[in-house]
Amino acid sequence: MKRRTGPSVSLFHGGSAGRGDSPLYRETYRRIRAIILDGTVCAGDRLPSARAMAQDLRVSRNTIEAAFGQLRSEGYVERRVGSGTFVSGNVPKVPQVSRRRPAKVPGIAATIVAHSREKGLRALSRRGRESSAPPPDVAADTDASFGVCRPGLDLFPTQLWNRIAARRMRRSMGDLLDEQSPNGLASLRTAIASYLRLARGVRCSPEQIVVVTSTQQAIDLVARLLVDAGDKVWLEEPCYTGARYAFAAAGARIVPVPVDVAGMDVDRGAARDPRARLAYVTPSHQFPLGVTMTLERRLALIRWANSANSWILEDDYDSELRYDGRPLAALQGIDDSERVLYVGTFNKIMFPSLRLAYLVVPPDLVEPVTSARRWMDGYTTALNQAVMADFVHDGHFGTHVRAMREAYRERRDALQEAVATYVPQHVRLGARDGGMHVVGWLPKRANAPALAERCARRGLYLRDVAGYYAGRPPGPGLVLNFASAPPNRIARGVRVLGQELGVK
Amino acid sequence: MKRRTGPSVSLFHGGSAGRGDSPLYRETYRRIRAIILDGTVCAGDRLPSARAMAQDLRVSRNTIEAAFGQLRSEGYVERRVGSGTFVSGNVPKVPQVSRRRPAKVPGIAATIVAHSREKGLRALSRRGRESSAPPPDVAADTDASFGVCRPGLDLFPTQLWNRIAARRMRRSMGDLLDEQSPNGLASLRTAIASYLRLARGVRCSPEQIVVVTSTQQAIDLVARLLVDAGDKVWLEEPCYTGARYAFAAAGARIVPVPVDVAGMDVDRGAARDPRARLAYVTPSHQFPLGVTMTLERRLALIRWANSANSWILEDDYDSELRYDGRPLAALQGIDDSERVLYVGTFNKIMFPSLRLAYLVVPPDLVEPVTSARRWMDGYTTALNQAVMADFVHDGHFGTHVRAMREAYRERRDALQEAVATYVPQHVRLGARDGGMHVVGWLPKRANAPALAERCARRGLYLRDVAGYYAGRPPGPGLVLNFASAPPNRIARGVRVLGQELGVK
Repeated sequence: MKRRTGPSVSLFHGGSAGRGDSPLYRETYRRIRAIILDGTVCAGDRLPSARAMAQDLRVSRNTIEAAFGQLRSEGYVERRVGSGTFVSGNVPKVPQVSRRRPAKVPGIAATIVAHSREKGLRALSRRGRESSAPPPDVAADTDASFGVCRPGLDLFPTQLWNRIAARRMRRSMGDLLDEQSPNGLASLRTAIASYLRLARGVRCSPEQIVVVTSTQQAIDLVARLLVDAGDKVWLEEPCYTGARYAFAAAGARIVPVPVDVAGMDVDRGAARDPRARLAYVTPSHQFPLGVTMTLERRLALIRWANSANSWILEDDYDSELRYDGRPLAALQGIDDSERVLYVGTFNKIMFPSLRLAYLVVPPDLVEPVTSARRWMDGYTTALNQAVMADFVHDGHFGTHVRAMREAYRERRDALQEAVATYVPQHVRLGARDGGMHVVGWLPKRANAPALAERCARRGLYLRDVAGYYAGRPPGPGLVLNFASAPPNRIARGVRVLGQELGVK
Repeated sequence: MKRRTGPSVSLFHGGSAGRGDSPLYRETYRRIRAIILDGTVCAGDRLPSARAMAQDLRVSRNTIEAAFGQLRSEGYVERRVGSGTFVSGNVPKVPQVSRRRPAKVPGIAATIVAHSREKGLRALSRRGRESSAPPPDVAADTDASFGVCRPGLDLFPTQLWNRIAARRMRRSMGDLLDEQSPNGLASLRTAIASYLRLARGVRCSPEQIVVVTSTQQAIDLVARLLVDAGDKVWLEEPCYTGARYAFAAAGARIVPVPVDVAGMDVDRGAARDPRARLAYVTPSHQFPLGVTMTLERRLALIRWANSANSWILEDDYDSELRYDGRPLAALQGIDDSERVLYVGTFNKIMFPSLRLAYLVVPPDLVEPVTSARRWMDGYTTALNQAVMADFVHDGHFGTHVRAMREAYRERRDALQEAVATYVPQHVRLGARDGGMHVVGWLPKRANAPALAERCARRGLYLRDVAGYYAGRPPGPGLVLNFASAPPNRIARGVRVLGQELGVK
């Protein structure tokens, strides 16, 4: 099920989701790999130069270079200095030919195109190409040990959860087998509504809650329901990668709005593009910078939405995890115009594979959202919903949140301490009064990707902050997750980082 | 969680998903309801005539009539013969006014439009309007007792399932809490691949399996990945409603291709529109007619796909349930051009809330499909996957399939017998050598919707076959589900149907 890799520490990496990972580059990579694997080109064949291929395939030379790089790193091709790039001789499935065939320089691009057509490789829809970009570093993200946002599963009360699940199955598995409502289980929606009213100041009735699988599904659902191809959408700069892909897949024209210490800069957004259809924000804990959107900015955003007749999608992830000061109530609670759609998730505070998140929508959107969700995947499996409802109802959720908050505060403190001890001059930590990670900014001249790669070789996985920016980041930085490992492993990780930074 | 309604029998209803349920009609309904609920119009106010409103709102008169009908049935408005339609006096939340205000005939439409803008009711995206059509008869479909396709849960080995789940949780809940691959659990994909190779003649490796939540999600995923707005898609006529909505939401131009006793008529499809991008078919058991696509037609479809460079999406639902003769192997297995994407589901042969289905895709689509799914909702919760894998691995799945096949055959025989006994002249049963339902064709002059409504009043729920047609059905008919109730209830149901048909 999962690749567990060797001794690793709790600072995470997932490669960058920047332009290098663009669908076009992936597609080119797939096309070339395909003609290598099916023997259209043989071991030893020389591939055309990047420039030649770029012309033939009508893509940028960078795209080709990126594809070549990937093929090299996977051993499909090898570069021979001075003479070019050749199909590798030691790829499984690559037919070996004794007689050296002439490399068909212009031929290959044609073959790729033909081959692509025939194999349907270029038959993806535009929407498909937009949304089929692989997640930042698939390996890392599919490996449970890595990935920003991973909670401290070592602290999860698994026995308790199993007991409640077993009890629920005994009591009502008969009902839980059956067809469910696309809105979610009534018991869970009631539990969510009262939690949100009390803990987050969200104004909602259980009828306004739509249970979904993940924040990602909530964003995708909202993007499809409210955004048409060509519509403009404000995204924070930097922004959660999943939101960028979901809105891009919906055909949205993305308007990156800068984030400063006060959160999304609404005035600059309005200056860039006042007519956006929707604004996606993470006010409680900006992803990935961790800043909190000030009340002034929240009010400005609502004023803008009213003047522009736009929607606001509030992603309130990690709002339970506040270590210093009191959390601000949700944006949704101070909006009188029913323009805010609110999304929260249990997949981080509980466990990732729970697959339970929730949308809170204005009353007149309940029916369209429910129906749209029904035609997407139907509804969420009932057992997890029922067990989660019990977990909340029996008071375990409140206890669990407090316990995690305490533990994560300790781990955050351990990270601060370790940074102060080992890399005081080299790593400047960003906002860290909440959540599960913090951005560590590096000296101006540091090469974050190279550093991340060196650390990765030593089992220390860090994510390049550049991957979250549509444009250029203010400087080199790495995302440090402090939630998923105990203090001693955090300290060890920072020491490794220091050594790779060349700290004496 | 679910409305259980009184004594009901196993013949199902779900209203029609025809043009009457069009998003536009729902939107109009919502708009009028909204201005009633917020007191913009008061109890006793007369609404404009359907004709007047149709003009003002620029929609068809049928649309308005449909909206009025819905509002009447929910008690928001009442029709006073001769004098028009009035806001009802006994709707909760409708402000009562003593003085009779003059009905603002043209005003109301304007108010509706203004109100809609202000409340964002018309702010749905085009895609949103396409995909936010409510499922055929929401009440019926969210009520577990009804809905075509509902399995016989009375036969499900719940205790066994719970035991396996408890064991799996004890053994590896720690791992199952964690982040999963978007493709699904390796153990389950291996189990699915070998089942499909043996039982369905599908050519696949576990790497080609992508576990999803439901057939609906598989169709939606394929529609988004392979179909662009404006692309043409062949759908069977009649067709599974969920497929129509998913492809419509993707912006596809739908080409209905007639189905005869041999399945989809490929030649007529090619005559209508040879250049379609994709064809969606249910070869094993056409939905809802139940016919099997002949080998000749299957080969013709593949020839067409090759000549048109198109994709085929094979929905193999209910293929496990074959009562007479041997099932044909999957279409995917006879395709050499890697143009077939295959989807199967566990949600019907096991239980609806399991939420496990699977896509089998050509090798070069694995990566795009996986990534696209990742940006839709991430992945499917791990526990159900692990328990299902155990269920297959321990040999329970084979046993279960055989048991359900036996039980459903009995129930189908009971239905045939009851029809022969009570309504021999009035109901002609369609293809019934597989699956969970059969179409009962009625005398030419029968009024299927009215009959369904009369039966529903007596707790007998039947679905009008017209709801599955884009155009006109060949004649009046009802879909009779025989899977979910024991023989005696089936007989009782057919007797009730006979009485409502006026059989002496």
